[in-house]
Amino acid sequence: MKKRKFWGWGYEDDLLTASEEESIEARILSTFDVQEVSILPIPKAEDIELPSVKISIPKSLESILTDDHLERLNHSYGKSFADTARALLKDFSSPPDLIAFPNSEEELIDVMDWANSNNIAVIPYGGGSSVCGGVETFVGDSYAGVISLDMKNLNKIIEVDGESRAARIQAGILGPDLENSLKQLDLTMRHYPQSFEFSTLGGWIATRSGGHYATLYTHIDDFVESTRMVTPSGVIESRRLPGSGAGPSPDRLTIGSEGSLGIITEAWMRLQDRPIYRSSSSVEFKDYKKALNATRLISQSGLFPANCRLLDSNEAHFNGAGDGSRHILILSFESADHDMSPWLKRALEIVKSQDGVFELPESQSKNSHRSGSSGNWRNSFIKAPYLRESFVRRGIVQDTFETAITWDKSYEFIEEVKKQTSAAIKEISGKPALVACRLTHCYPDGLAPYFTYGAYATPHTMIDVWREIKLATNEICVSLGGTVTHHHAVGRDHRPNGYDIQIPGGFKDMLTSAKERVDPLGIMNPGTLIDPTGIEIQNWITKK
Amino acid sequence: MKKRKFWGWGYEDDLLTASEEESIEARILSTFDVQEVSILPIPKAEDIELPSVKISIPKSLESILTDDHLERLNHSYGKSFADTARALLKDFSSPPDLIAFPNSEEELIDVMDWANSNNIAVIPYGGGSSVCGGVETFVGDSYAGVISLDMKNLNKIIEVDGESRAARIQAGILGPDLENSLKQLDLTMRHYPQSFEFSTLGGWIATRSGGHYATLYTHIDDFVESTRMVTPSGVIESRRLPGSGAGPSPDRLTIGSEGSLGIITEAWMRLQDRPIYRSSSSVEFKDYKKALNATRLISQSGLFPANCRLLDSNEAHFNGAGDGSRHILILSFESADHDMSPWLKRALEIVKSQDGVFELPESQSKNSHRSGSSGNWRNSFIKAPYLRESFVRRGIVQDTFETAITWDKSYEFIEEVKKQTSAAIKEISGKPALVACRLTHCYPDGLAPYFTYGAYATPHTMIDVWREIKLATNEICVSLGGTVTHHHAVGRDHRPNGYDIQIPGGFKDMLTSAKERVDPLGIMNPGTLIDPTGIEIQNWITKK
Repeated sequence: MKKRKFWGWGYEDDLLTASEEESIEARILSTFDVQEVSILPIPKAEDIELPSVKISIPKSLESILTDDHLERLNHSYGKSFADTARALLKDFSSPPDLIAFPNSEEELIDVMDWANSNNIAVIPYGGGSSVCGGVETFVGDSYAGVISLDMKNLNKIIEVDGESRAARIQAGILGPDLENSLKQLDLTMRHYPQSFEFSTLGGWIATRSGGHYATLYTHIDDFVESTRMVTPSGVIESRRLPGSGAGPSPDRLTIGSEGSLGIITEAWMRLQDRPIYRSSSSVEFKDYKKALNATRLISQSGLFPANCRLLDSNEAHFNGAGDGSRHILILSFESADHDMSPWLKRALEIVKSQDGVFELPESQSKNSHRSGSSGNWRNSFIKAPYLRESFVRRGIVQDTFETAITWDKSYEFIEEVKKQTSAAIKEISGKPALVACRLTHCYPDGLAPYFTYGAYATPHTMIDVWREIKLATNEICVSLGGTVTHHHAVGRDHRPNGYDIQIPGGFKDMLTSAKERVDPLGIMNPGTLIDPTGIEIQNWITKK
Repeated sequence: MKKRKFWGWGYEDDLLTASEEESIEARILSTFDVQEVSILPIPKAEDIELPSVKISIPKSLESILTDDHLERLNHSYGKSFADTARALLKDFSSPPDLIAFPNSEEELIDVMDWANSNNIAVIPYGGGSSVCGGVETFVGDSYAGVISLDMKNLNKIIEVDGESRAARIQAGILGPDLENSLKQLDLTMRHYPQSFEFSTLGGWIATRSGGHYATLYTHIDDFVESTRMVTPSGVIESRRLPGSGAGPSPDRLTIGSEGSLGIITEAWMRLQDRPIYRSSSSVEFKDYKKALNATRLISQSGLFPANCRLLDSNEAHFNGAGDGSRHILILSFESADHDMSPWLKRALEIVKSQDGVFELPESQSKNSHRSGSSGNWRNSFIKAPYLRESFVRRGIVQDTFETAITWDKSYEFIEEVKKQTSAAIKEISGKPALVACRLTHCYPDGLAPYFTYGAYATPHTMIDVWREIKLATNEICVSLGGTVTHHHAVGRDHRPNGYDIQIPGGFKDMLTSAKERVDPLGIMNPGTLIDPTGIEIQNWITKK
């Protein structure tokens, strides 16, 4: 069994090569105009001291709970910038006391009952890939202790219904295991978040995950046929239905609940046939307004491209998908049923009307392989989390944030977010910063811009610099009319001056009451989304 | 101003011709093998006595509230079979005491505050087209009185955002008024429930209305960009966003709340360009299994037909879309952007693989008019509610019920529902009955079957017969794994032995807590979806 890094992304031996490290260092020196950078060593588990365990393992749960040192490290953090930074700085001041690895829903219920009876906070843990403080184990002093509940052993596909193209799947399954199993049945869920390698079905549902595809069936929300969730007050299971008008959707309250109501144990998920027809092209634009307009027109055309990802010139350059002088729209159509050439043809007509320039379609054939700009983009997409670590080790704040806005505000919104973020970074870090933007998802009525920035800091200052920038970008997105998160989730990092402002007051009241009903003692993922009533818990992000 | 019938569908002067009446009577005599039927006269408002008004109109609300006799009649019932039956029988035993016609949200809030302070139940009323007891004003004895809150004066389009194709619209607008206004802007919402003429935006959102189209963007759920709802505890307004991953969707708790949490006053709605390209065909099948299979394959193809409505042979015959020997699939594609011939061509290949027989496509041209089977079907669809009245006057129970199920169970489910419903009707009414089925909506993972039946009764027995059949069909749909309603809503009629069984227990708890939070005195549409805690209110449908 390969071991995951407790301090970063991927497996222990997935490290950058020396030349990759050198090239990143050179980029940092030139980008920030500094003479040298210090570099944090990769920490060793045995060098890290952890606070003592505050709770003891009951006899009946001995086979499920562990206080193993490495597991406590593994489950202390998600994978946000601040998580990796804290890990590299060997700051593990609030680890879970214990980690639970239930092997069945019955065992999971036993753990929950024990936690609920003993005032122990429960932090649901899927792949641990949260980039917003969603698996944070700092819960303050009002609990007897805190456990991380790892779903890795509930990872089976229980039942497949090929006729309806749906499967009943346990929540702890990782992306690759899910897709590999489905492949054998010629099926796919076709949900590829950037975290795909190390995230789980349950995590996707709990956080309203967004897939890699740009339009239509890409969000996990739309793939959910029914859910099953264990709350401290019992199991909530919805009926398996393709559609229903019987009251508000039970699933839609579970979807996005981020572990604050209970733990999703399984779901019936909608699947698809595996695409075999692909038609794709990449389009260059000089003018960003026209590029946006082309993207809007395609989004409103009813063509539903699988990919319709507009990279601004900076973003394209960063990702090796252009020379930095042009904005690039990566456009592709996929189908398991029919040739998509007529679709691409019409999309390219639209693109042309907005002065987009493209070569002849890269591929319009059956079973074609990805190549060209879209191929480059894809490799870079998967590699990104590995690269980031290298920046963190050098104290450079390399991070992203994402939001959504309607088309009428799109251009001004993106420009203003970039401008205000650059200004905030300049003020916070003392050095100018480039903010790049790509669109991850398009809708008939709007778009989801995704921003990337790098900010200068040192290993000593990076967490404070990151925190200030995070608070700034929360405020910028929400005050300009966007959402504080389009698909990364709220966690703890997006709450202060973000979600807490954005959530409609009356809805917050209803959600709080709903939580009180199923989690009366407030043990479930405290501090995420809403605070359990009567328990004042600080978010780590506002804690100094 | 044309006056609506207080006892039935449409305007007072929209009556069937003498020959239409004769033909219906002849059909009844032959269908049920009886010698004669008695016929109830159309009631006159002035002949109906109403219970006295229990509450007095406060000075400050004199211009908003009325105790007008005809308005009390108008607002006593929705448009279910039992509603029309009770009206024709002049049974108006539980009318609203008063009707409110607020002219602004401020006035609406004034009415709500007054009702909340005086223990008065509030029944939200849009177009009054509920077919499931959603606007029922029988609220038992625990309230000081009951008012119907009619939204007809909040009927403006407030703001249009052409770039995002969205508009901010007041909830009381009727379907035709909405579409006529949008037409001037070359836009459409393209949401056409069968009740279109006499239903409102707010009603559609509150009941999770299903539109006429078969796939993709047809449900009101997907058109909602943001909502604004007045609850007894204040206004809840969501942020206007094309998509968001910030916690559970606030809108999805409002959508389907059926007036039990508050009254929706306005919403930002997603619009579309008006289709100008149409390609359609109708396909005949001998074998129902193959017809279902063709429908499934098209639903899973990613072609997204605007119409994909499978009528079984009985349903086709009833609606003049066939001679009763074949099952008919009405298939059409629409687009505002591009010729849909390639889409139809592929769909017809699929149909052919399942032995479907079709003539050359009826029309594939720009701006073509509807014709052939699909045209016949459409006329019949709009006419249906008018025809039904004629049956009710003769004591014949003519009604529909609808559900949804996954594809794996589709054939057996439809056959079993028909069989069990026929058997139940035979037992209840003493005479055999034909149950016909059409599919109203298709999903990649399932379908929504819609059943029509006629059952023999007399004006004297029809309500009891209908009630017994309604309770039977609730139970049949839910016990066979379907939903008690796919797009008609829950109201009161689908609660006992339907929604109350189907709703996940823990979700019901959460919904109840949410309601208690925003409607602590339980004045909002009591008895719909859930009962206000502490107030025992009988549903009219179980009251003897």
